[in-house]
Amino acid sequence: MPPGLENRVPKPVYDRQGHPLLIVGSMALDTVQTPFGSVREVLGGAACYAAVAASFYAPVRIVGVVGQDFPSAHMDLLKARGVDLEGVQVSPGSTFRWSGYYEYDMNAAHTVATHLNVFEHFRPTLPAAYRTTPLVFLANIDPALQLSVLDQVERPLFTMCDTMNYWISAKREDLLAVLRRVDLVLLNDGEARQLCNTTSLLAAARQVLDLGPRAVIIKKGEHGALLFTPDSHFSAPSYPCEEVRDPTGAGDTFAGGLAGYLAASGDPSEANLRKAIIYGSVMASFDVEDFSLNRLLTVTPPEVEARYRQFHEITCFE
Amino acid sequence: MPPGLENRVPKPVYDRQGHPLLIVGSMALDTVQTPFGSVREVLGGAACYAAVAASFYAPVRIVGVVGQDFPSAHMDLLKARGVDLEGVQVSPGSTFRWSGYYEYDMNAAHTVATHLNVFEHFRPTLPAAYRTTPLVFLANIDPALQLSVLDQVERPLFTMCDTMNYWISAKREDLLAVLRRVDLVLLNDGEARQLCNTTSLLAAARQVLDLGPRAVIIKKGEHGALLFTPDSHFSAPSYPCEEVRDPTGAGDTFAGGLAGYLAASGDPSEANLRKAIIYGSVMASFDVEDFSLNRLLTVTPPEVEARYRQFHEITCFE
Repeated sequence: MPPGLENRVPKPVYDRQGHPLLIVGSMALDTVQTPFGSVREVLGGAACYAAVAASFYAPVRIVGVVGQDFPSAHMDLLKARGVDLEGVQVSPGSTFRWSGYYEYDMNAAHTVATHLNVFEHFRPTLPAAYRTTPLVFLANIDPALQLSVLDQVERPLFTMCDTMNYWISAKREDLLAVLRRVDLVLLNDGEARQLCNTTSLLAAARQVLDLGPRAVIIKKGEHGALLFTPDSHFSAPSYPCEEVRDPTGAGDTFAGGLAGYLAASGDPSEANLRKAIIYGSVMASFDVEDFSLNRLLTVTPPEVEARYRQFHEITCFE
Repeated sequence: MPPGLENRVPKPVYDRQGHPLLIVGSMALDTVQTPFGSVREVLGGAACYAAVAASFYAPVRIVGVVGQDFPSAHMDLLKARGVDLEGVQVSPGSTFRWSGYYEYDMNAAHTVATHLNVFEHFRPTLPAAYRTTPLVFLANIDPALQLSVLDQVERPLFTMCDTMNYWISAKREDLLAVLRRVDLVLLNDGEARQLCNTTSLLAAARQVLDLGPRAVIIKKGEHGALLFTPDSHFSAPSYPCEEVRDPTGAGDTFAGGLAGYLAASGDPSEANLRKAIIYGSVMASFDVEDFSLNRLLTVTPPEVEARYRQFHEITCFE
């Protein structure tokens, strides 16, 4: 960790000169159907969504794995966003594939098939240059692998993790070990209730804080997101999207935007976490407007700033 | 309507010297069970919840009906809150009774029995002194009755109505006639989707605005509330309640607090509607802490103000 990082004046957003962000997670080819269309074998995966969202703010480094069939065009696209791909392993075999569909209730994804392929034997290995990355986002992977990443990084300024319902039941002890070591955990509302066996999100958040993290964010989809720390609470709305064509990757995009903003500013204070949550929400609101990363790849910094200001307008009262 | 009412400086809250509010709706005896306890034949009904919440801000006038079995202690309690009961009819027969229960998902009430009793033949009749009330809240009753109230009031400054799923399907035309004549309609998210046959709350809100009202509020229970006007959007969070013992009346309490604040201030501007929504949310957050109106009857103005400030802290970001 660069000395005094947390005390530096936040750098301007979008210069990509901020502190780098390490993202570890899935890279995938997705086949998705929604009431508004369908796509086949498009770029997906938590690490890809998060990386592109974060790339608006900070230099990004990915650790992940793809098969030999992963289109080089996707790699070029990530590189064009300034994403460092030294940590991406190309393994013999096929890339991780997910296929699913959404009905009119876009809050629930219905999985048709998950083919882990090369992702099944993924063992994250950090290039030497990555080990001192100050900001680390462990996207949703086996918590045992998340632990192995934490073992490889050197005194990061800030670490955050995502997870999913499967790990909460199947790898609970490993997940609890991760929670003891990260600064921030992201859960959706169902996961928070499952992890803590309670219907109250407030009670769940308090339990999670007792498990180790100094902040927990509960994602509620179209209902926004909640931040809890031991002595504060923040409620972020969602953006009233005109069109939700495909919600795939919204949570990863939210986390990526948030992590990228934190990295760029180098300031993990509670006040800055609130700003980061809004920037994450802004990125997620763009993601859902089109399939795959299509919309994220056309968003301009002025559009991001305009939508950030709209979040102010949406929430302000005297 | 007093001339120039809308231009007056808002009066201080809690002095009950603001402009009066007329509430038309049910008065009931409720039997409720939740995971945290149960009560039998306690004071309930939309008009009672709304009146007590509004009484923190403005003089309240109720038009409703009770049977001869309605405890005089309940009448005394409403009077003690400064509520004018001249418009309450006491009819031969029994008071409206509702009984229901909640499971751990407190967002959904399960009705066991509804006995309309004297409420079945309720015909709201406004005392002469009520006809010029500047603020009118039509709580959830048959929209044909809501229309008859609108026929009896003289040029109110601001009118608002609530409704329920039953009227949306059974009395759609009457409800649409009400919507053409009110300034604000309150719907919960399910009702908004049902009324407009869409899953998108944004699309639903736009449709409702096209039907007449100049503002629509969509209540989302534990997820807060949304305000839509033709050219603005506001998202209010819910308060992270430590204890939710009984959510009965939360929506009516929200509406009553909101209407009372609007009446007290005499200012139906969009900016003041936002404040009113927060005051309504504050009152609802107290309501759910205990059964019936128990908590509302012990809340103090400083507690209300403290919680209002907490809503600021919950939502602010740079």
